[in-house]
Amino acid sequence: MTTRLLQLHPDRLFPVDPEVRSITRRLYAAVRDLPIISPHGHTDPAWFASDAPFENATALLLQPDHYVFRMLYSQGISLESLGLTPVSGTSAPAVDPREAWRILANHYHLFRGTPSRMWLDWVFAEAFGIDVQLDAGTADHYYDHITAQLATPAFRPRALFDRFGIEVITTTESPLDTLEHHQAIAASGWQGRVLTAYRPDPVIDPEFEGFLDNLTRFGELTGEDVFNWSGYLAAHRKRRAFFAQNGATSTDHGHPTAQTADLPRDEAEALFARVIRPDVTPGEAELFRAQMLTEMATMSAEDGLVMQIHPGAFRNHNPAVFARFGRDKGADMPSRTDFVNALRPLLARHGNNPDLTIILFTLDESVYARELAPLAGHYPALKLGPAWWFHDSPEGMRRFRHAMTETAGFYNTVGFNDDTRAFLSIPARHDVARRIDCGFLAQLVAEHRIEEWEAAELAHDLSYTLAKKAYRL
Amino acid sequence: MTTRLLQLHPDRLFPVDPEVRSITRRLYAAVRDLPIISPHGHTDPAWFASDAPFENATALLLQPDHYVFRMLYSQGISLESLGLTPVSGTSAPAVDPREAWRILANHYHLFRGTPSRMWLDWVFAEAFGIDVQLDAGTADHYYDHITAQLATPAFRPRALFDRFGIEVITTTESPLDTLEHHQAIAASGWQGRVLTAYRPDPVIDPEFEGFLDNLTRFGELTGEDVFNWSGYLAAHRKRRAFFAQNGATSTDHGHPTAQTADLPRDEAEALFARVIRPDVTPGEAELFRAQMLTEMATMSAEDGLVMQIHPGAFRNHNPAVFARFGRDKGADMPSRTDFVNALRPLLARHGNNPDLTIILFTLDESVYARELAPLAGHYPALKLGPAWWFHDSPEGMRRFRHAMTETAGFYNTVGFNDDTRAFLSIPARHDVARRIDCGFLAQLVAEHRIEEWEAAELAHDLSYTLAKKAYRL
Amino acid sequence: MTTRLLQLHPDRLFPVDPEVRSITRRLYAAVRDLPIISPHGHTDPAWFASDAPFENATALLLQPDHYVFRMLYSQGISLESLGLTPVSGTSAPAVDPREAWRILANHYHLFRGTPSRMWLDWVFAEAFGIDVQLDAGTADHYYDHITAQLATPAFRPRALFDRFGIEVITTTESPLDTLEHHQAIAASGWQGRVLTAYRPDPVIDPEFEGFLDNLTRFGELTGEDVFNWSGYLAAHRKRRAFFAQNGATSTDHGHPTAQTADLPRDEAEALFARVIRPDVTPGEAELFRAQMLTEMATMSAEDGLVMQIHPGAFRNHNPAVFARFGRDKGADMPSRTDFVNALRPLLARHGNNPDLTIILFTLDESVYARELAPLAGHYPALKLGPAWWFHDSPEGMRRFRHAMTETAGFYNTVGFNDDTRAFLSIPARHDVARRIDCGFLAQLVAEHRIEEWEAAELAHDLSYTLAKKAYRL
Repeated sequence: MTTRLLQLHPDRLFPVDPEVRSITRRLYAAVRDLPIISPHGHTDPAWFASDAPFENATALLLQPDHYVFRMLYSQGISLESLGLTPVSGTSAPAVDPREAWRILANHYHLFRGTPSRMWLDWVFAEAFGIDVQLDAGTADHYYDHITAQLATPAFRPRALFDRFGIEVITTTESPLDTLEHHQAIAASGWQGRVLTAYRPDPVIDPEFEGFLDNLTRFGELTGEDVFNWSGYLAAHRKRRAFFAQNGATSTDHGHPTAQTADLPRDEAEALFARVIRPDVTPGEAELFRAQMLTEMATMSAEDGLVMQIHPGAFRNHNPAVFARFGRDKGADMPSRTDFVNALRPLLARHGNNPDLTIILFTLDESVYARELAPLAGHYPALKLGPAWWFHDSPEGMRRFRHAMTETAGFYNTVGFNDDTRAFLSIPARHDVARRIDCGFLAQLVAEHRIEEWEAAELAHDLSYTLAKKAYRL
Repeated sequence: MTTRLLQLHPDRLFPVDPEVRSITRRLYAAVRDLPIISPHGHTDPAWFASDAPFENATALLLQPDHYVFRMLYSQGISLESLGLTPVSGTSAPAVDPREAWRILANHYHLFRGTPSRMWLDWVFAEAFGIDVQLDAGTADHYYDHITAQLATPAFRPRALFDRFGIEVITTTESPLDTLEHHQAIAASGWQGRVLTAYRPDPVIDPEFEGFLDNLTRFGELTGEDVFNWSGYLAAHRKRRAFFAQNGATSTDHGHPTAQTADLPRDEAEALFARVIRPDVTPGEAELFRAQMLTEMATMSAEDGLVMQIHPGAFRNHNPAVFARFGRDKGADMPSRTDFVNALRPLLARHGNNPDLTIILFTLDESVYARELAPLAGHYPALKLGPAWWFHDSPEGMRRFRHAMTETAGFYNTVGFNDDTRAFLSIPARHDVARRIDCGFLAQLVAEHRIEEWEAAELAHDLSYTLAKKAYRL
Repeated sequence: MTTRLLQLHPDRLFPVDPEVRSITRRLYAAVRDLPIISPHGHTDPAWFASDAPFENATALLLQPDHYVFRMLYSQGISLESLGLTPVSGTSAPAVDPREAWRILANHYHLFRGTPSRMWLDWVFAEAFGIDVQLDAGTADHYYDHITAQLATPAFRPRALFDRFGIEVITTTESPLDTLEHHQAIAASGWQGRVLTAYRPDPVIDPEFEGFLDNLTRFGELTGEDVFNWSGYLAAHRKRRAFFAQNGATSTDHGHPTAQTADLPRDEAEALFARVIRPDVTPGEAELFRAQMLTEMATMSAEDGLVMQIHPGAFRNHNPAVFARFGRDKGADMPSRTDFVNALRPLLARHGNNPDLTIILFTLDESVYARELAPLAGHYPALKLGPAWWFHDSPEGMRRFRHAMTETAGFYNTVGFNDDTRAFLSIPARHDVARRIDCGFLAQLVAEHRIEEWEAAELAHDLSYTLAKKAYRL
């Protein structure tokens, strides 16, 4: 087997036309090394609190990355053979992480044309300095080299954070989280900014696993009678304040739909009484989530936390995988999502408030030009989050800019979110976004739709300023 | 602050590849100066009847342009500060139009990448001969220069009409309109062709403001008993004939959906009896609109008026803005729109009639390749209107051609509509369409999918012939 | 009238940028002459069984091609004038096929920008060696030349099959088909592989014309009591086995939606009892089709037949055309189609089976990136069929690759299907697919997203290997 060199081309992802590429190079050179603002994601704050070394290549790069193992699984490779941990109550034979790594190496061709391939190659080449491609012949070299480097001080979480040029990163926690890791970071004297975000789904969604137990704990943490509507709302206010005191500037809401509601107080109270019963119906659960988006917007208007809405994921689509491996194991699917009708109750109440920021995401690209750009191009409270999840990719980002810009402009968008738990890929993801945005801007310049000095300003804004401003960082 | 030159590049909006650009230049050169056929829009016929000068830069270019003020509003600028007029019963402090203009100038960067920027720059450079860019430093120069020119004879509506090379323009009137302005134009001896179109929404949509009052007026104008189904239909026939006598060649229908119905006569009559009651339900209103599309198609088959359907706008989405400023103030939103199911009753009745022309528009691009192109590529009565409203933009037009052409061909489309009340931007809008169409055709030539002589024929047809023929002008 | 030369450009459909075009040329040169795998289509096995000559240009190229006559019809040309045969019970004047051909020639400009134009030009130039373009002036030359050649041995079906380099072709038959033509081919000693596929819609869809009569015949062919749920399922098993014995490797299911169900046995049995009554409701019919998709998947898991699902066509949209000319006459329309919710019952039962292959198609491109790629990028049983029907076109194929690849990769796709009854266009259709795929891959190479050796492997896989493997050929 031929060993092939791994080289990241400096022009990767740039448009091919020589004139456009040349403009892109100039735009990109000025933003390439800007600090990373990572205002939304799922890294583990414990990493930065403990600064303990990562374990090995497989545990760091394969097992937690649902993009990677879902592709392998789709081609008939069992999740057990990759060493994924079953939920408690079930057991699986121990898997040698080196063997799991070899499976990835043997099937690395499956990732051709995917963003995972680009992110991983960046991690291999830039983070670990590997200069040969991953395949069956180099699998062990990779495994040994990566695992050895992870044991060195330069690959500790805080060292990587600094080396990656991260100015600020935001993690996502449940209201039931004690934020002990964030407090430990603050107490440690380390200067890295690792913020939290308030993600109340476990105590808002009546269909969330353990909802009633979660409420009980919510009451314990806040000292409120959370099985009473007033107490429940007061508990949110207290916990939001606690998060804000510990650095949070935003909340996040992952609902199945974007439905909102604005019920009279007595109806909301009666609805709450129904959803805390074990026989809550799906319709009641949906209406309660809808009402709570408006309640959360009301609280954001009061306390200044930026509100993020991530709707439209059909979670745990595969019952067998969910039963065996639990949440977030690659069996979440996008679904069609309406915004124009669904958001109207919330917008009628809060949409005209220029001091409120609500950032919308979607997994349904058909709403980009039809619904999201027209909404964000009108309502002062709305901004557009970047291309998300399955669409956080070169083609996905291009579709986002092409569909959104003409109606929403650039200044109703908020820069890039990596939204990842794959810590090492964060610089690669921001780099992809900067490359694609610069290429898009260069195209506008080459078509004489904007001038190059404007594109340069925009490149800076999209790479850095807009995220910082929108998230109040 | 640096003053920057404003120069419209002759190759703007052309594809960047040198070969494609070169073909585009040749195609465009042959159509650039063709007369403008503007078969659908919302200019005010009073302008051409009175030929009175326009007032000032703000009143002409900012306050009536919902594309412009919606973007400013989305970034927290109040509509009051722009001098928009509240509806009667509310009041607002007077706003100096120069101050409003300065706000636009200070925020002109918000329009980067939008079609408004391209249209406005054309108006500044080509219509007014301004050679510096609009920004805070040039705001007063712009305001003074534009306002001064508007007072000169060369900027009177008829002079601009002639200078813009408009062969024919169509306005849109309610059946309740007396068409006095169109009659005044005809009586004036001026040769400009300013036609009307029959837009009966105010007397067809039971949810339209003042529907019952409108019906009363409809009866007075026609001498029919319009609260009786037969009389109501007869009134439409009379009023359509009156419009046709005054130059109309088309009707226009702006419904929330594309739903049609073809009820037996007794059911239609019973439905009519219900919708003229004050307690009409939303379902009855929707069914009545649906039935009336088929009735209008029946009348078009009789009287030869081309029928336009503009469905899918969620009007007045923002209740606060609607209450304060009324209709058409930038808070209309697109919504998902079905055609294949919705149009079937009408098409089963009239779709096979090759002498009838029904032109379909949509705000939902997901139906381009899936529904509209297959329908128009089969039914003789159907034609496809151009990319509309939020999609009347360079990217929107490209998506239209890419998605429609392979199934519908070019000859089931009807050229360009500007659909605007922004009179000065009309040449810019047609110019954008010609540039984009020539670029699309050049791409087909460069990929050897058609030959250049075919592209040249098509460029002429798309720029001029198809609109003239489809609208029977 | 000028006679214009007909020349297929060797670079047709390649990207225009010189670098990308150059890479495309290299990739395409290596796959251009690979054998054709045609794993799904609608050619008539009788052609290959009898090897009788085709009749004339019109009967071969115009009258059976719904892409062609739907476009002509959309522009007001009657189907009668093209010589289409009305259904029995109605009559039409005989049409001179030469006159029908002249109508096509006179309107050939309507096909500019459509795939039909490219397919037909290939047939004219490559299959028949014609060197002038089709128009009014060359119509008779075309008609005479084509009709004369069809009478020669080189244009018999088997000779064309060999000349086209077809390695295997699959036709589509009802369970009621005796497969006599396939058996005749097998008995003839001719080496051409012409397989069948099991398309049970006529005995599965309670709304299919003659459903109950079809069931009676189904019982006669299998000796099972098909009006009993167990007997009905047993009849399917028997008939599937018969098809497999005669070469079938796949089944095919053309349902109005992608809805699936997985009912308990007693409910399924009760449902079956209802759908064999003349008063079956649309809801019962839909649920039964849904249940049968899961039953068919169960059988595929047993007998190894690859399962294809072609959902989302609104059949016979035009009642007048259907009444006069019957099924498949160009009045089928795509409709919006859900997959994530609709397929869940089937996937919960069978989706994790890596030995089962279910190939999904859609007419609704909005599900490409949103639903199909995420589903196929996770479930081992799922693969993605190519861009289908209205989307089997250069732009359609590009949209398919751009939207699918980043989440599904290439290896969850199955190469190209021509899905046609237009036998002579088969090489042209595969050639279009190879050109578009090579262009897409070349773009990835030029953007440094994959390397050229990878693109070369992929080009071979997409053109040949994936279809062969996915369909078990």
